Amino acid sequence: VKQDRVVRVALLGFGTIGSSVYRLIQKEHDQILEGTGVDLRVAKVLEIDMSKVPTDAEPSVFITDFSEVLSDPTIEIVVELIGGTTTSFDFVDAAMRNGKDVVTANKQLLASRGQALFSLARDEQRHLRFEASVAGAVPIIKVMRESMVAAELHTVYGIVNGTTNYILSRMYNEEGDYPEILAKAQELGYAEADPTADVGGADAAAKMAILASIAFHSRVTLTDVAFSGIQGITLEDVRYAKGLGFVPKLIGAARLLDGKVSVRVFPALLPADHPLASINGSNNAIFLQGDAIGEIMLMGPGAGGVPTATAVVSDIVSIVSTNEVGFLQSCSCYRQLELYPSEDVESAFFIRVSVADRAGVLALIASAFGEHEVSIASMIQKGRGDEAELVLITHPTKERQFFAAVEKAKSLECCQSEPMTLRVL
Amino acid sequence: VKQDRVVRVALLGFGTIGSSVYRLIQKEHDQILEGTGVDLRVAKVLEIDMSKVPTDAEPSVFITDFSEVLSDPTIEIVVELIGGTTTSFDFVDAAMRNGKDVVTANKQLLASRGQALFSLARDEQRHLRFEASVAGAVPIIKVMRESMVAAELHTVYGIVNGTTNYILSRMYNEEGDYPEILAKAQELGYAEADPTADVGGADAAAKMAILASIAFHSRVTLTDVAFSGIQGITLEDVRYAKGLGFVPKLIGAARLLDGKVSVRVFPALLPADHPLASINGSNNAIFLQGDAIGEIMLMGPGAGGVPTATAVVSDIVSIVSTNEVGFLQSCSCYRQLELYPSEDVESAFFIRVSVADRAGVLALIASAFGEHEVSIASMIQKGRGDEAELVLITHPTKERQFFAAVEKAKSLECCQSEPMTLRVL
Repeated sequence: VKQDRVVRVALLGFGTIGSSVYRLIQKEHDQILEGTGVDLRVAKVLEIDMSKVPTDAEPSVFITDFSEVLSDPTIEIVVELIGGTTTSFDFVDAAMRNGKDVVTANKQLLASRGQALFSLARDEQRHLRFEASVAGAVPIIKVMRESMVAAELHTVYGIVNGTTNYILSRMYNEEGDYPEILAKAQELGYAEADPTADVGGADAAAKMAILASIAFHSRVTLTDVAFSGIQGITLEDVRYAKGLGFVPKLIGAARLLDGKVSVRVFPALLPADHPLASINGSNNAIFLQGDAIGEIMLMGPGAGGVPTATAVVSDIVSIVSTNEVGFLQSCSCYRQLELYPSEDVESAFFIRVSVADRAGVLALIASAFGEHEVSIASMIQKGRGDEAELVLITHPTKERQFFAAVEKAKSLECCQSEPMTLRVL
Repeated sequence: VKQDRVVRVALLGFGTIGSSVYRLIQKEHDQILEGTGVDLRVAKVLEIDMSKVPTDAEPSVFITDFSEVLSDPTIEIVVELIGGTTTSFDFVDAAMRNGKDVVTANKQLLASRGQALFSLARDEQRHLRFEASVAGAVPIIKVMRESMVAAELHTVYGIVNGTTNYILSRMYNEEGDYPEILAKAQELGYAEADPTADVGGADAAAKMAILASIAFHSRVTLTDVAFSGIQGITLEDVRYAKGLGFVPKLIGAARLLDGKVSVRVFPALLPADHPLASINGSNNAIFLQGDAIGEIMLMGPGAGGVPTATAVVSDIVSIVSTNEVGFLQSCSCYRQLELYPSEDVESAFFIRVSVADRAGVLALIASAFGEHEVSIASMIQKGRGDEAELVLITHPTKERQFFAAVEKAKSLECCQSEPMTLRVL
């Protein structure tokens, strides 16, 4: 006989995601109950900005004092949707110490202060789930943790930031320049007023830290991730790339190399027939590679209140459905691997540089690269008045050697601009 | 303090998947133990074909009598990898009645006799898991069941048969004819000696029955699925399709239409920029669409011993990690929806037919379609001696009307061949 299980949750924060979770739980209450036996109820919503509280809201539900959540023993699960890394940390910490399981969508919190929170979760035997922190509605955390137990993942890479993907897709498709497309993205709500965290790569870096920690069972924090963003990419770069059959994307890549962990975020050029090249707009897509599975890919909306809310709700139901064995599985950083030095990673590169338009220049540049054992796969040279533009694609090479070669090339008198470099996948 | 949990399983069958599960559990034993706390041991392997038993096998492990599994109370989980729908049914039934949870990769068993097994599972409070039955290593069952609890899925569609995808990919890429490519596929092990179940669509139909049952919480059996295969597709069709910018794929599609369930498998033409058009070889890819998530896609190897074995192992660990709430969630066909009549589904179509090469023929054909309110989106006519080839693409139309129009066209004296029809996505 089916026994319904009442589960009372508290939402901390009633912004885009918080209000979406609230409404989704109301709308899907019966469906969730029928499908899972979980009778899900929002018992409290903590929101200090009264202008956000719906006018038809039950006054006893909307509160401004977090202690009301802690002191209510009927609340099992606290959903942290405040953002930031200070108040949110204190609330998550206090919730677990008060016997409550936690769901959060806060990637910055996990990537910067996750270690302390996961240790506490383990000590207190509390669940700490965070599906919504990476790739919105795409259930990448559950898949990695529960479906890949025998897969021996060695690589996780893909597109984990919707804002930059939107901007790069439009730059590519419409041949628009970066500042203009960024302004449009902000106007349409695809980029924030201060877009630094997205366009600079820090948002993707936090997500990759989380994904790498799960994939390799070794805690990776934001400071372990080498990241760069898309701000330096010009329409010129995009056009050259397109002409060579490449599409620009911001890529997050986590790899096990010689038993060490390499986690990086960088703008890269992908061959136009690469499956990630066709991921347009604000979608996210992540490849998992492992000895036993070959390659699996998950794709879907990386942001948006309602899609992200589905991930929060699935975390709540997962907590309620999991026993103590499953609990152990969710604290699975059981080792601490060293970091692989970024400059030893092998990559192919695209370089664009202005050079003096005269005979012998190519030979000079080529020998600068040759000296550092960087071999060139293809080259385009275009005259533009008394200077020329040189575009090179290298074969894969240790990044240390490549950047040494670039330094050498820069020191040449014929080199007339700061070289633009992009990795090539 | 971490407590390891010994879990003893029996494998029924030691073919491609069975032997891969056996070896994967050995190879990944320590990794699984560290990551999940589950100390996984293969206690018994049932295999009557002694030639399959490895020479270094522990003799007490390899057995030929199923009753040894039933009578061993230390065996918690039985993994059915025999195939077929009779012995496998009896073994799964007996295992659950003897207090054992079951993992199976047997799509035919579930699609044809699932109802009885799921009822028994519920009555006996036993887990019956089947991640490996659909799309190999791609964790589509877990994602649908556990991550989409609030997603209100209304459409599940994609490529769920690797053999046909391999054949169609090669026909398209190499412009080879069907019999020749099929022979190559058989030679390389991508198609079986008797390929009927794959190329005729029955294999995909069984998988779609399983996916639809989970997506819509309503039991769909193989007999509810309208399916057709790829045997009728010629190189000519592929060439015409290619010329029009389409790629041929065998598509499984399950939809909720007016609260009823439509599940079908059919060869279709996809625009070349459709994300499924680029899924090559024996990969599978499945789209999930729902009100709350928009669209999510999972892609990966749809077959192969080792990838499929990872799905079996993840099912075992999931059983061990799930409490009684999670158990209820896994018996989630809580309603029985009606079937949506296939002939009322709307589709666009491609039609190719030989016609007499004389004036007025197009008008005759067009008026046959017009009579049945089928509107034509585009048309190509090519002369070939005294007959011509006519290729039409229609706008979406109820299938009933479309096939009535085709019947009408066939009855015309100018029509000189059986029309070839393919749906267009």
